[in-house]
Amino acid sequence: MERYKELFERYLKKTVPEKQPENLYRPVEYILENGGKRIRPLLVLLASEGYGVSAEKALPAAAALEIFHNFTLLHDDIMDRAELRRGKPSVHKKWNTDIAILSGDAMVFLAQQQLETYPPEIFARLQSLFNQTALAICEGQQADMDFEQREVVSEAEYLEMIRKKTAVLLGTALRFGAVLAGKPLREQQEIEKAGIYLGLIFQMKDDWLDTFGDERFGKKTGGDILDKKKTVLYVKLLEKLSGRDKEEFIRLYHGEDLPAAEKINRVKNWFRQYNIERELGQDIEKMFNEALQITDKLSLNARAKNQLVELFRRLNERKV
Amino acid sequence: MERYKELFERYLKKTVPEKQPENLYRPVEYILENGGKRIRPLLVLLASEGYGVSAEKALPAAAALEIFHNFTLLHDDIMDRAELRRGKPSVHKKWNTDIAILSGDAMVFLAQQQLETYPPEIFARLQSLFNQTALAICEGQQADMDFEQREVVSEAEYLEMIRKKTAVLLGTALRFGAVLAGKPLREQQEIEKAGIYLGLIFQMKDDWLDTFGDERFGKKTGGDILDKKKTVLYVKLLEKLSGRDKEEFIRLYHGEDLPAAEKINRVKNWFRQYNIERELGQDIEKMFNEALQITDKLSLNARAKNQLVELFRRLNERKV
Repeated sequence: MERYKELFERYLKKTVPEKQPENLYRPVEYILENGGKRIRPLLVLLASEGYGVSAEKALPAAAALEIFHNFTLLHDDIMDRAELRRGKPSVHKKWNTDIAILSGDAMVFLAQQQLETYPPEIFARLQSLFNQTALAICEGQQADMDFEQREVVSEAEYLEMIRKKTAVLLGTALRFGAVLAGKPLREQQEIEKAGIYLGLIFQMKDDWLDTFGDERFGKKTGGDILDKKKTVLYVKLLEKLSGRDKEEFIRLYHGEDLPAAEKINRVKNWFRQYNIERELGQDIEKMFNEALQITDKLSLNARAKNQLVELFRRLNERKV
Repeated sequence: MERYKELFERYLKKTVPEKQPENLYRPVEYILENGGKRIRPLLVLLASEGYGVSAEKALPAAAALEIFHNFTLLHDDIMDRAELRRGKPSVHKKWNTDIAILSGDAMVFLAQQQLETYPPEIFARLQSLFNQTALAICEGQQADMDFEQREVVSEAEYLEMIRKKTAVLLGTALRFGAVLAGKPLREQQEIEKAGIYLGLIFQMKDDWLDTFGDERFGKKTGGDILDKKKTVLYVKLLEKLSGRDKEEFIRLYHGEDLPAAEKINRVKNWFRQYNIERELGQDIEKMFNEALQITDKLSLNARAKNQLVELFRRLNERKV
């Protein structure tokens, strides 16, 4: 995986355009050079090599998804009023909102230009998946913003939001490898599913750790509770509550009057009392096992399969 | 041309998605139903039929450009703080800026999905032109915003900005027809040039009419001057001025102290004194003639050629 990362960083660096006007292209360089785990391009390269396509050949497809992903971050940061991104000022803070909107827009087309390097049949297939994925992400982001205005969100709605906002792009990244290798539709759909599990498990685990993470591993817990975030724990509990209990919990979760530590403790007690911690742990374990089963049946070579299993394992075992 | 408009409106109406979430897709419907002249789709249909491709077959390509164009309007309205669009509240006013950013983003992918209806070779060609055009438009919009922060802009910079921001999309619309008909590259480039002239002439004429338009035809003149807009008249004059004259004119144009009518008159006198009105008239005439020459050599059928010439003539003769 380290080799993929190096390959990708080198490719991205020489790909990012140093064009005019500066106020359009400098923010693009800025956000792309700001790093990140590059998980989406890594998945493209992993799947491609696993199906016998060289990583070199897959680099433009990998870059397309990474540039696109950073476009979504750029626009999301405006909508979320986020002042920082990976520890540095977000684009709309460092420049301004107009520039962040427009350079984000430009990134979509820069991303898509990467796909032009493939033969028309492949280009058309990738672009079509790209469009579908991008629309799902827009729908997920809008659902997320809509949920902020509501007190009650069902678990099904929450999972669908997470699937669209986060998971489908990971699925598409793996699927890109299958498309580049000319794999049949069935194989494409299966590896896409594996990627979607990757995203779902990541998010569930993230929610779980934020509340029940082990502080011995340096995890500061309770942030989501203080931010009143509608996590999977929150939506799961609400599914079980009704009447006065529901009202009481909602009042507690969205209230401002308790000291932080006290509020965190009380909320965690509700979760524990209704078995949410354990239930979510079981959900994650179930998804993890399904993902491993799907992965096992893929026609990837052994090396790629192991890499993918290793990714799932690391996600499932992470402590922070 | 009326037939094209009807065909297009009917197609667009059944194409606009009534999907969820509402806050993502309602603004898309809203801006697309708000009309406009539909000049870009008309150009696609005109060129397609002129090259022997049925308008019906060209409708998705036409819709792609119209949806894309409305995406640019949606995002531009945020950047320009425009409260109205075609007499109705702009999307960021009727909803909010976050929704306007995100539904604009979604429109890009909805536009592109239209192109998926074509065979891969055509789809890939159209998508590639689409990417190139979209990037040029982002560059033009950024240049326009940059110019607002500067007092002096050269005529060449101004023309390049207008070419990118407005003209290339008209060129691409005509070129789409040539691509759908499988015309050779040379023919594609020539009809694209004709479309670019269409855009340039439109903008020059617009600037000219705003200052020198005949008020008998109901044109209210002087608006650009009061808005301190850097029109082609402004940049042309600055090219001729230096030293104290330049300073004096800039002070007059960007000053706030004169009554409106007085300021308009004084600025117009500067333009007249330096022959800007006549020079611009000659520039437009020259572009008009070049456009007619290019059009004459195209391999479009006579009917489409006449429609295109008629468009140029109407632009050139318009009084309001």
